[in-house]
Amino acid sequence: MSTKSKTEGGNFFEDFKVGQEIRHATPRTLTEADAALNVALYGSRFAINSSDEFARAVGLPRAPLDDLLVFHVVIGKTVPDISVNAVANLGYAEFRWGVPVYPGDTLSVSSTVLGLRENSNRTSGVVWVRSTGINQRGEMVLDYIRWVMVHKRDPAAVVSAPVVPKPAASVAPADLIVPAGLSLAGYDDVAAGSPYRWEDYEAGERIDHVSGITLEDSDHMFSTRLYQNTARVHFDAHAGKSTRFGRRLAYGGHVISLARALSFNGLANGFRVAAVNAGSHVAPTFGGDTIYAWSEVLERAPLPGRADLGALRVRTYAAKDCPCGSWPGKEADGKYHPAVVLDLDYWLLLPRRAA
Amino acid sequence: MSTKSKTEGGNFFEDFKVGQEIRHATPRTLTEADAALNVALYGSRFAINSSDEFARAVGLPRAPLDDLLVFHVVIGKTVPDISVNAVANLGYAEFRWGVPVYPGDTLSVSSTVLGLRENSNRTSGVVWVRSTGINQRGEMVLDYIRWVMVHKRDPAAVVSAPVVPKPAASVAPADLIVPAGLSLAGYDDVAAGSPYRWEDYEAGERIDHVSGITLEDSDHMFSTRLYQNTARVHFDAHAGKSTRFGRRLAYGGHVISLARALSFNGLANGFRVAAVNAGSHVAPTFGGDTIYAWSEVLERAPLPGRADLGALRVRTYAAKDCPCGSWPGKEADGKYHPAVVLDLDYWLLLPRRAA
Amino acid sequence: MSTKSKTEGGNFFEDFKVGQEIRHATPRTLTEADAALNVALYGSRFAINSSDEFARAVGLPRAPLDDLLVFHVVIGKTVPDISVNAVANLGYAEFRWGVPVYPGDTLSVSSTVLGLRENSNRTSGVVWVRSTGINQRGEMVLDYIRWVMVHKRDPAAVVSAPVVPKPAASVAPADLIVPAGLSLAGYDDVAAGSPYRWEDYEAGERIDHVSGITLEDSDHMFSTRLYQNTARVHFDAHAGKSTRFGRRLAYGGHVISLARALSFNGLANGFRVAAVNAGSHVAPTFGGDTIYAWSEVLERAPLPGRADLGALRVRTYAAKDCPCGSWPGKEADGKYHPAVVLDLDYWLLLPRRAA
Repeated sequence: MSTKSKTEGGNFFEDFKVGQEIRHATPRTLTEADAALNVALYGSRFAINSSDEFARAVGLPRAPLDDLLVFHVVIGKTVPDISVNAVANLGYAEFRWGVPVYPGDTLSVSSTVLGLRENSNRTSGVVWVRSTGINQRGEMVLDYIRWVMVHKRDPAAVVSAPVVPKPAASVAPADLIVPAGLSLAGYDDVAAGSPYRWEDYEAGERIDHVSGITLEDSDHMFSTRLYQNTARVHFDAHAGKSTRFGRRLAYGGHVISLARALSFNGLANGFRVAAVNAGSHVAPTFGGDTIYAWSEVLERAPLPGRADLGALRVRTYAAKDCPCGSWPGKEADGKYHPAVVLDLDYWLLLPRRAA
Repeated sequence: MSTKSKTEGGNFFEDFKVGQEIRHATPRTLTEADAALNVALYGSRFAINSSDEFARAVGLPRAPLDDLLVFHVVIGKTVPDISVNAVANLGYAEFRWGVPVYPGDTLSVSSTVLGLRENSNRTSGVVWVRSTGINQRGEMVLDYIRWVMVHKRDPAAVVSAPVVPKPAASVAPADLIVPAGLSLAGYDDVAAGSPYRWEDYEAGERIDHVSGITLEDSDHMFSTRLYQNTARVHFDAHAGKSTRFGRRLAYGGHVISLARALSFNGLANGFRVAAVNAGSHVAPTFGGDTIYAWSEVLERAPLPGRADLGALRVRTYAAKDCPCGSWPGKEADGKYHPAVVLDLDYWLLLPRRAA
Repeated sequence: MSTKSKTEGGNFFEDFKVGQEIRHATPRTLTEADAALNVALYGSRFAINSSDEFARAVGLPRAPLDDLLVFHVVIGKTVPDISVNAVANLGYAEFRWGVPVYPGDTLSVSSTVLGLRENSNRTSGVVWVRSTGINQRGEMVLDYIRWVMVHKRDPAAVVSAPVVPKPAASVAPADLIVPAGLSLAGYDDVAAGSPYRWEDYEAGERIDHVSGITLEDSDHMFSTRLYQNTARVHFDAHAGKSTRFGRRLAYGGHVISLARALSFNGLANGFRVAAVNAGSHVAPTFGGDTIYAWSEVLERAPLPGRADLGALRVRTYAAKDCPCGSWPGKEADGKYHPAVVLDLDYWLLLPRRAA
């Protein structure tokens, strides 16, 4: 009889080696159903993801799947190997979307270990990985560096000397990827829901996205399962009782997608999330919390060779049970307002005005 | 820097002008996923919407999407422009479905302001609009008049003299639209789930639909988001605490679809909702309520040139936490039984017996 | 006026006749949406159902729909005729899946009454039926015997002498159906998520599936409605208050699918559920319960003429609010551990190692 348990418990800190490549299980064919569920879970209204006709008018074959949905599926695949034993999600960098994903595309994900540094208490350590999602033609759909703090199985285990990568602080506008074939000459502001184009935004401008959406436990569990994300803190209420929170935590990506959907009111023409510069899940979110969001425009960058679109760097804060007209963010002492749950710095693509 | 806030707050009463045309944002391509979610949200069992084979046997290319789903999507698109600042939804008229909607069709919606009448207290007024949903070929899929009471932004704002339209009291049978190609010679009663055809119903007949379905907050929020309906009362529990109800209200259309799904038991051959004559959301519905329904047959009308189908005018009541064997409706004093939440007068199409 | 009520109340014990054939209503075209919802409801991660590319690599045209989803849809169709007046679900036998079901297939279901035996108290009796689901080409997709205890409408009704079928105690390996065209030479263990093939399992081996998933009322109602299952105990909270449980019961099939999804951790290469030998819903499950599971390997059987795959007979127990490292099952006294809610004995197909 086989004596080794067949139950997979995931990797602990001492299981990772710098340079190690991991091909993650369960490739996933995304379909029109994922598009509809993305709307049903978050209320997203961006026309390019909602209407095949709108997408065709800007040069795409049909409505691409929501950029954040691609992120959710990619990161979900990495969880069983990378972060199922994580203490905390520490950061993201060099985070770029590649070719759009359409219904019928199959995503596969692999990761390479870039760095490792044991913590001084020797019970855990930080793991840096580069994870890459590709479609069935091997084209990159999402690529990012992520670092997480992971438990050691055995605190006494001896590990190698630290290797600490130095990811770029932000994605340069010239490195943003514009989908092939995209042409915004026929961009329809009315269908898109906003008269504001790239030129209308200025660094320092603040936008209150006004509405709030309440998150139920069944909602975030539904999304976590849909993304085949196995992080048990999200869907095991029994085990949740024994944690410091005493209950389930919402998947942080669910909050990101809610904030993105809310941002439609003020950023409706931000039709593509092209890159994430930095992101922090500032505080946990639970079933019953109502999420609000506001954004600050950080930078407006033209894109080389493109007169029809430009990049807008935006910082979106989400807060719970706190409408955002008072701009809850970082306080004078550098600490976050207690209602803040998300601080996300990212690049959007927007149509420019005709010259 | 742009000084105008980019946040869209919707129109107030004084923003509307008679004759004004509004093209609503976010066209939506409906798919097989919307069909499945319609089943999952309401438990609908009408064979024509459930089975491509059944639909082909009656002359359609495949299973059309549920008629009420089309309504939900169309009205959802109008909310940000028409009713996001509404006090109350007052009525519907001249409400007809046109060509069937199939997976892959993209719906766009526009509205024309038909009438305006300020209320005597000058804080709000009634807005009449005709809203029309079309598919990607410009064919009408749904067309109706709706009137809502909308807040004024500024009570002191001076508005024009009232213009009050006089919608028809009901849709005439001759104006009902029968889908092109439909032919019921091969209609399969067993697959459809009922032996009762058009001839078997009589005016005055009452049908208790027996079963009840409990509505959770996550259910109605899921449907509201799916329809990209931005009416915050449905999904913002934080703001809901400060309302007179102290909580979220279920989207009234969710209750209509539940009542329609329940009506399968007794009206299984009512394969198409062709028109709504009048409808009233009599009382609000909340998460945790169980919806029951019963119907009264109002009229049986043959359709010109059609020996294979006829129209049945039905009035369906939905009640909460109250099984409907006691026929809760209007009481002797003209008031509704306290359990009633919906009173809907509409036309169904049913197969006739072969001559 | 029609005097007979048009409301369908379902069959009672005295309505059934041995040999009676019943064609069930509401054929259903399954789509990619059902595949996605199966993932979203249960978190299933089996690669063959998740990835069209993976399925093509083993000789199938695309990813087949989850085997248990087929079961849910088939049994749901039988409820209004067979078990809507049931006291209890007693057992399953000779339960085999046939041709795989793909998006676009339309399922129809019929049943034949095999046996009837009135209970001694004359208020109810046991009904045995064989139910068969077929696709639009008439190919069998699922076939099983089920017996349920059904109320009599009238205890005084006189019924025929008992006819008691003797179903096989289990499905013989030689009777398991392997999908046509399936060829596992290119089976990708990494994509599938497990290095363990058929040869690695031994009778008597126990596998703790470790994770738990909490079930909300809105989750199981969503699945019940999706399967057009009309058993009111699952979705009528108002009526549920008057039952001995005082609330809604989760659909037992929901628990089976959760257990199957959890079993991925340890049985990831069990790519197809081929047959059920026996199954018991040991105790009811309610919203808020967290489901865990463990499995015991019962038997390893080669399949005639197949070097690339074999059959594994597995018994999976699901327990609520009880992690399964302590193997909750039948106790020494023959009674179940109080946490057990499901005991399922079934055949899986697994890839074999290359010779």
